[in-house]
Amino acid sequence: MKRLPVLTLFTAFLYLCVLPLSAGADTVLPSWNDTAPKQAVLDFVADVTTPDSADFVPESERIAVFDNDGTLWSEQPLYFQLFFVIDRVKAMAPQHPEWKTREPFASLLKGDVKQVLEGGEEALLEIVMATHAGMTSEEFSEAISAWIATATHPETGKRFTEMVFQPMLELLDLLRDNGFKTYIVSGGGIAFMRPWTEEVYGIPPEQVIGSSVKTQFEMRDGKPVITRLPEISFIDDKEGKPVGINLHIGKKPIAAFGNSDGDLQMIQWTTAGDGPSFGLYVHHTDAEREWAYDRDSHIGRLDKGFAEAEKNGWTIVDMKKDWKVIYPFEVQ
Amino acid sequence: MKRLPVLTLFTAFLYLCVLPLSAGADTVLPSWNDTAPKQAVLDFVADVTTPDSADFVPESERIAVFDNDGTLWSEQPLYFQLFFVIDRVKAMAPQHPEWKTREPFASLLKGDVKQVLEGGEEALLEIVMATHAGMTSEEFSEAISAWIATATHPETGKRFTEMVFQPMLELLDLLRDNGFKTYIVSGGGIAFMRPWTEEVYGIPPEQVIGSSVKTQFEMRDGKPVITRLPEISFIDDKEGKPVGINLHIGKKPIAAFGNSDGDLQMIQWTTAGDGPSFGLYVHHTDAEREWAYDRDSHIGRLDKGFAEAEKNGWTIVDMKKDWKVIYPFEVQ
Repeated sequence: MKRLPVLTLFTAFLYLCVLPLSAGADTVLPSWNDTAPKQAVLDFVADVTTPDSADFVPESERIAVFDNDGTLWSEQPLYFQLFFVIDRVKAMAPQHPEWKTREPFASLLKGDVKQVLEGGEEALLEIVMATHAGMTSEEFSEAISAWIATATHPETGKRFTEMVFQPMLELLDLLRDNGFKTYIVSGGGIAFMRPWTEEVYGIPPEQVIGSSVKTQFEMRDGKPVITRLPEISFIDDKEGKPVGINLHIGKKPIAAFGNSDGDLQMIQWTTAGDGPSFGLYVHHTDAEREWAYDRDSHIGRLDKGFAEAEKNGWTIVDMKKDWKVIYPFEVQ
Repeated sequence: MKRLPVLTLFTAFLYLCVLPLSAGADTVLPSWNDTAPKQAVLDFVADVTTPDSADFVPESERIAVFDNDGTLWSEQPLYFQLFFVIDRVKAMAPQHPEWKTREPFASLLKGDVKQVLEGGEEALLEIVMATHAGMTSEEFSEAISAWIATATHPETGKRFTEMVFQPMLELLDLLRDNGFKTYIVSGGGIAFMRPWTEEVYGIPPEQVIGSSVKTQFEMRDGKPVITRLPEISFIDDKEGKPVGINLHIGKKPIAAFGNSDGDLQMIQWTTAGDGPSFGLYVHHTDAEREWAYDRDSHIGRLDKGFAEAEKNGWTIVDMKKDWKVIYPFEVQ
């Protein structure tokens, strides 16, 4: 046995073990400014991963949950899943001539999304059901993959998966490097997210929790398939988020990241235990590089969350002040 | 730096890396006889893990799903969860004087389980709802942990967690050593299994899928809790198993292990793809060391599964012939 390769291998092994702990503040979370939120994150991670810390948490309990819309990627002027819905209605319209005169489809086909939104949740649900059901799980997954690979945002012209937040990608990596298991817990469709979250966020399908339609197992031409039914099964928003976490993970996370009142209960649930925990809100304050909105926004409203964050000591990221860059394409 | 500790560490590291590949047939699956099922398992594992094999499967896709009752532990003369239910009814009876005259509780309190079972699914559901709801998720988890630590089987006198199958524990280890993620997919309660599966099977809560009641997030005395409601949310049996797998994992497993017709759809779903896959039935044939039953059993009936296994080339384990030992206490 040659000595050199063995030592090289061993050095590489040691390096891999030690890297997350020894990296300097300038190489960890490089897209975050050296303001309070970055320090709060680093302090928490050090606190729960240092073996002789009173707050040490074993790896199996290091669960971190992330909202998606507005927390990991943008959500303006509409939740990105709604752009999929709109494109899908247009693509399906030739098979549905009745949509030309039937609301909410008629308005949507005329491009009047505002009118559709005024129909409220019911109108949206009708469209979502019409476009998300009636096919197998595999067919739906393929439709999403094909759409997300080419569709672009109406204002930026970027693909939607390019409009993810670079600082949050770095945070996901930091947590995983420190033994955390990272989950998405989103009001968006579980089946809408799963085809691309592993490639974009490093989060595999089994760590994605979201809203869902009912599904059914059946044999079709002797082949087993799972078909999607036009009926809501679960809404993973507000009170639904802790319920979804409990169903899918079965233990309480120790860190939760959101941006709206829809994430309030998830952060409450995560931070209510006796042990160490971390809650963080992303506040959209940058009208130039992204969007600025909070209390008055129909999408991603953040209102009650401010008072709760203050009361409970959660961290609030001011996107304009605390993040050097927003999107990955800014640094490429 | 002393040379010895470094080399010792490195040797230990190498040993850990290489162990699963170099272990001989006598040290792999030691409780399995050298009959066809053991060989089928070893061939499949080698096939999907050998990088230059046409059937190579990357680690992220190596998902194996296991039924619990009758597959990982015994299920006679009653599903073990029903013994918890019986003990719970007895413990709760003083607070429910009406149960003395109200079926199915009256029969159960008199010890006439047969009468309860004749009430069919409805009677069982009523008892399960009465004993499994009305408390928080944490209270229920604590009740399960306290019960499973002390309760014993009426015939063997062993604790229920001692009545797991040693050959299946070895199989779980073998698969995990080869990069598989192992899941439980059981008709039993998800919240009944999660408190003890990690310790007993090495399967963490987030990899346990099962039947569930509806739950609800609420603030109780300013503290967020998840309460269990007396309403079934999901039955993870038969057609429900692929649905549960799709919801929780979001990708198709490549190996499925069961013992009854309740596992049929799960094995069909797992083995129906174009890629390599493995289906296995445990056939209870050993009346001396465990129990012998199949087509005529009310619990764990295996009937349709025989024909499907033959048609599709699934492996069938004959417990009497193929397993050297059944329970861990036989080898301790």
